[in-house]
Amino acid sequence: MKLGRLNHVGVATPSIEASIAFWRDVMGAQDIRAPFDMPAQGVRVCFVDTPNGQIELIEPLGEASPIHSFLAKNPAGGQHHLCFEVPDIRAAKAWFEGQGKRVLGEPRIGAHGTLIFFLHPADMGGVLTEIMETPEGEGH
Amino acid sequence: MKLGRLNHVGVATPSIEASIAFWRDVMGAQDIRAPFDMPAQGVRVCFVDTPNGQIELIEPLGEASPIHSFLAKNPAGGQHHLCFEVPDIRAAKAWFEGQGKRVLGEPRIGAHGTLIFFLHPADMGGVLTEIMETPEGEGH
Repeated sequence: MKLGRLNHVGVATPSIEASIAFWRDVMGAQDIRAPFDMPAQGVRVCFVDTPNGQIELIEPLGEASPIHSFLAKNPAGGQHHLCFEVPDIRAAKAWFEGQGKRVLGEPRIGAHGTLIFFLHPADMGGVLTEIMETPEGEGH
Repeated sequence: MKLGRLNHVGVATPSIEASIAFWRDVMGAQDIRAPFDMPAQGVRVCFVDTPNGQIELIEPLGEASPIHSFLAKNPAGGQHHLCFEVPDIRAAKAWFEGQGKRVLGEPRIGAHGTLIFFLHPADMGGVLTEIMETPEGEGH
């Protein structure tokens, strides 16, 4: 296992529209992608490009969204997860399981169209960690 | 104001030594810098290189460390702040103040040897935000 690129930092927000205005008008982001829904994961997401990666804005979608409990504790929003790229999602899953880390569910298609999984923050130094197979054409 | 490079993600930890072992042995980091103390800020820090940036591990240093309260709420550690680069720290301070954002203290020398300041998380979508003048030779 070799540490991969930090694909994005996930930032939860009660309002993607308000966060888009903040990142555009206050932080000066010039490339903000169109928001879209991910019903299977209970989130609406929007990617904000930085010169060397992305911020993923995440808003709750539906009553069962896992983001509700995060926002109950952090009503203004806040840092939610870190996402690192790997070349092979199955090998990464086996690696982390072999290290005794809890993989949360089976790999599934993530916001960039490749397979992802999450690791339990209590096993990862308090950091909810997403592992993503590197999107096509974005390998380094 | 134009969004700059995400220089690093700050991750608080109760033990930098344990976190170094985690990032090296579990996450596969290959470039981990030597830890060092920043007494003026009440922290001991260690930078872990990723292919496109850094993770800054932060451990409390001294009884007055601002990290103690974070760890009281998050005993295992967790994501603490995001740090973005700017070309001119004074211009950035004036910009954020003009936007009604609370700058926490005067610019001071940060862990990379250039001037930094922090912005109040309640004004920044719940994200404690560090602004850093781009280190020499690292401009993009």
